[in-house]
Amino acid sequence: MSLEKKISMAVIKRLPRYYRYLSDLLRLGITRISSKELSSRMGITASQIRQDLNCFGGFGQQGYGYNVEYLYNEIGNILGVNETFKVIIIGAGNMGQALANYSNFEKRGFKLTGIFDVNPELIGKRIRDIEIMSLDSMDRFIMENRVDIAILCVPYEHTPAIADRVACLGVKGLWNFSPMDLKLPYDVIIENVHLSDSLMVLGYRLNEMLKIEK
Amino acid sequence: MSLEKKISMAVIKRLPRYYRYLSDLLRLGITRISSKELSSRMGITASQIRQDLNCFGGFGQQGYGYNVEYLYNEIGNILGVNETFKVIIIGAGNMGQALANYSNFEKRGFKLTGIFDVNPELIGKRIRDIEIMSLDSMDRFIMENRVDIAILCVPYEHTPAIADRVACLGVKGLWNFSPMDLKLPYDVIIENVHLSDSLMVLGYRLNEMLKIEK
Repeated sequence: MSLEKKISMAVIKRLPRYYRYLSDLLRLGITRISSKELSSRMGITASQIRQDLNCFGGFGQQGYGYNVEYLYNEIGNILGVNETFKVIIIGAGNMGQALANYSNFEKRGFKLTGIFDVNPELIGKRIRDIEIMSLDSMDRFIMENRVDIAILCVPYEHTPAIADRVACLGVKGLWNFSPMDLKLPYDVIIENVHLSDSLMVLGYRLNEMLKIEK
Repeated sequence: MSLEKKISMAVIKRLPRYYRYLSDLLRLGITRISSKELSSRMGITASQIRQDLNCFGGFGQQGYGYNVEYLYNEIGNILGVNETFKVIIIGAGNMGQALANYSNFEKRGFKLTGIFDVNPELIGKRIRDIEIMSLDSMDRFIMENRVDIAILCVPYEHTPAIADRVACLGVKGLWNFSPMDLKLPYDVIIENVHLSDSLMVLGYRLNEMLKIEK
């Protein structure tokens, strides 16, 4: 598997998209698809698709296209959807609660084990059977439960300190919803989510379209 | 401004990131920055930064770097943060409520004017002074209020029909949180948000790191 380490982030970032499209095809009962047809559905060139999938050893037969179920399962394996990660959410405000309620993540191997907040009105409440606990009890919880991933939904100014704290306790992955590109000096994988970036791109494109129409 | 129409989506997608970093610099009291220093902060090459900003006519003086406030305001103008868009949220579940509570969007010119749902237990409740209304009253509301953007937080299977419905009523921008790449045959700008894609990339990278450590 040493091959996989050289795969570019651009390719890796496209894998979940392949996975989604293949899942749709399965749902539609489509068992076989050519790179050309997949290309027109996904809006990616066929040569890009072949190139991407070749990074992982191919999967297609010339002239026969791809076996949808096989490719779906293989991409799932590459993405590690059959692995299980223990996840906590820090910050049980609206975004934290929305994510806690999103049971789809569990299907992909992300198991929510704890939710933490400082707000006494939230502590003790339950979301999908998981109690919101005090932030004071988080450190011990992380160590005892060997938490893999922390989802950070805390206010901007508290994010770096909380990230430091959980990384020092051995959490290896951070999914950050605070509007900053979080960086840490340790061996921690960080994915920063910037929702408003996507909204601002929408605003820009909308403005451009309205200018043309005027 | 006809120049702007040729700008690639890759550049446009980086603009909100520049805007965030410049906002951080302003907050830190930094008034001037070289492309080299901005480059090391942002993890983008200096030549990429110069190239990106040249798409909009430059802004920098050779040897002097960029005036942070000026650049921040100019990028804000390009992104249209001073325009106001009327926004509705369709689907007042957890994600819809999280977005409704996120007042930061208003600072960027996105004004929430209505929230709609089908659930009788939610209809009539208020989020930040805005009442959740019945989906039955949405069509009239969109027409009377000239809504620009609809945020779609409805279940997967209802998304295409709802998207069609609002597009036919003149909504020009869709921000879609359903896990599908929504496409419409009309002149509508769509930004699809795929939260679980980002989580799956985190899982993949985490697996790769753990393999190396073993």
